[in-house]
Formats: sequence, C-alpha cells, structure tokens
Amino acid sequence: MGDGATAARRSPGRPRKADAERRILDAAIDEYLERGATGFTIDAVARRAGVGKSTVYLRWPDRDTLLVDSVLARSRAIEDVDTGSLRDDLIALSTNMLRFLLDPVGFATLRLAVEAVASRAAPQVTIDVAERHRRAAGVVLTRAAERGEPINPITRARVIECLYGAITLKALAHGLETDTTSDAETVAACTELVDLLLPLLLEHGRPPPDSVR
Amino acid sequence: MGDGATAARRSPGRPRKADAERRILDAAIDEYLERGATGFTIDAVARRAGVGKSTVYLRWPDRDTLLVDSVLARSRAIEDVDTGSLRDDLIALSTNMLRFLLDPVGFATLRLAVEAVASRAAPQVTIDVAERHRRAAGVVLTRAAERGEPINPITRARVIECLYGAITLKALAHGLETDTTSDAETVAACTELVDLLLPLLLEHGRPPPDSVR
Repeated sequence: MGDGATAARRSPGRPRKADAERRILDAAIDEYLERGATGFTIDAVARRAGVGKSTVYLRWPDRDTLLVDSVLARSRAIEDVDTGSLRDDLIALSTNMLRFLLDPVGFATLRLAVEAVASRAAPQVTIDVAERHRRAAGVVLTRAAERGEPINPITRARVIECLYGAITLKALAHGLETDTTSDAETVAACTELVDLLLPLLLEHGRPPPDSVR
Repeated sequence: MGDGATAARRSPGRPRKADAERRILDAAIDEYLERGATGFTIDAVARRAGVGKSTVYLRWPDRDTLLVDSVLARSRAIEDVDTGSLRDDLIALSTNMLRFLLDPVGFATLRLAVEAVASRAAPQVTIDVAERHRRAAGVVLTRAAERGEPINPITRARVIECLYGAITLKALAHGLETDTTSDAETVAACTELVDLLLPLLLEHGRPPPDSVR
C-alpha cells in the first residue's frame, strides 16, 4: 500500500475520490441486486455508499449511466482471450460468459435485458454488455481466419448465437436449481458445447478461393 | 346466487363461473405484465377481473398457482407438433417457441424465470413452461427415432439446448430493438437455425468432407 499511514487510517465517512467511486459502483451493484431496476435510485446508492448525492451526480448524470458503469466495472473478463487456438479461444470465451452469468452481477445484466424488453425501455448497459460479448467472439473468429482456419462466413453469426444461447439457458437452469456448479463443471459444460458446434463453424472441403465463382 | 333467467342479461359484475375463471386468468396475465412478479397480488387481480377475492381463492390457493395457470392457459401452441418429418417438426417447434417468446405473455415466462433466479425463489410456472418445451422436443425426437431416423442419443439434449438458447436470444434481441418482426421472418429465422443444427442431431448426418453445401 503506497499511500501512507493517513490513507490507511482515514475515517470511513471521508473517502478519497477514487475510493468514493469504487464504493459508489459497489453500492450501485448491491442496490440493483437487492431492489431490481424499478427500485434503483441514486439516493439509495449514495446512502449505501456513505457519500452525498451530489458526489454521485458529479460523476454520473443519471441512474442508467451509473448502472452501466457499475456492471461493466465488474465484467472485465469478457474480452482479452487469445490462446492461439480457435477451439481453446471459444472454450475460454464461453467459460467466461457462463462464469459471468453465474455471478449475481453478470446475471443482473440478463435481468436488466429482460426487464428492459418487458418495459420497452432498454437501458444502455444491456446493449453494451451484449455488444461486448458479440465483439469478443468476432475478434476470436477473425483472428482464427487470419491464421488460415477456414471460418465459414455464412454460419459464424448463427453458431455464436447457438453457443451464447445455450450458455444463457445453462445459467438460467442453474439458477432455478438448488445445487451449485463447480468451476470444473462450468469448464466441462462449455467444452462440450464448443466441441459440438465447432464443425459448423469450419468450411470442410471448401474449394480454394480462386476456384469459387 | 342468481344464475337462472338473469344469467343471460347478467351485469358485468356478476359473471357466471366459467366466465369468471376466464376473466381472472386474463386479469392475472395483465396484472403480471403491468406490475411484474413483485407487484402481483390476488387482491389486484380480483379487482381487475371484477370479482371478489374469495372467488379467486375458491379456485386458486395462492398467487403462484394463479400465475402458472394463467400463463399456461395462453401457451397451448407449444406441443402437438407432428408433421411426419423431423426437420419440419423442429421448424414448427422452434417457430412456436419464438412466437411464444415474442408475445408479451410468453415473454413474461422468461421474465418470471429470470426474476426467480435473481430472488432465489423459482415459481412453478417457470419450471412448468420450461419442462413443456423440453418435453415437446423429446416427443418429436423420439418419434423420429421410431421412424428410423438416426437420432444421436449423445448430442440430442445439447442440440436442443442450442436451438432453444438461440431462439431465446433472438426474442431478447428483438425485444431490445424497435423494429417489428413479421411472422415470415420468424419462420425464416427458425428454419435457418434448424438447418444449421440438424446435422448435429443425426449420427451420420454430416455431409461427406468433399461435398460443398
């Protein structure tokens, strides 16, 4: 801890700026998990974080922006997958996604999406997180194609939809059951899905580019 | 209880029994769609249906049972698929499911599932509807196997999970966008998914390596 004795001993009521941000983001997630989107207010977040409302408003103009930032702050693991193999990349991606959805914060983004559809008002967080998952898959597939793997441009979007869809249902089914899932089981389930779908992603026996058309 | 001659010209406040049930079920769905699971009370349903609370309790002991019945009453189309062909059965099944999820009542079952996971209290409706979808797929696959189609027993559950998962994501994506989906687009999207996944369901279904499809 390089911030010295005073930082370690400061009173909880007077956090420094970075601490306050961290506490506001944590409080926002906790509020959302407890009360859902309808009960989520900046007032309650400020109270829970032990800061003034104006401190929250200094950084976040409205509750949706705050919710987006707090969820994204806890979902770092979605991207940055690069194992050198398409199969391993896809396993890593889908394992990240299933772990994310099995965590209450990650699951909250699914809940936000569903509530947004029901109330016909999509909060930005939903669109942002979905877009990050889609983009992460796109990066992995494009890199594989650049390595010379025969990625089928016609099927790729639908195969990813099947993969992510199956993972979403797994997270739902898990949540509806009472038993817990070990991380080894999470990895195994994702590996099975990737091995099932991988052949659909590759163009076996595709004629070389110059003989097409 | 004045049934008899006055029944034909009864006031809206005094429906006959079958009418009252229908109105209670409709009111329950409308209440759920408007207020979500947390705001759903038998009190409000009775008021909306124009019946006494005791009339609701005569038939439904608690709010979860009422919610299950009202959702199931509007989701008849899930089962009873039998076209004679596995591909067409799967297209019919998945089209039924996507139509169901694109309808506010069907979508409400997904919302219930997600809220149930978040609140760690799964209502029966969620489990019942998921089970009906799973069973409908099981019936279709078993019938195909009986006709002699080489259904792969190892992949079948996972392929259905991919199919239903992709459909769930489609319903979500649709709900988050502003444009509407025509029924022809719904059928086309489901047909594409089934044609993508069908080879994984058959034991020797994959095209030979040199064929280009």
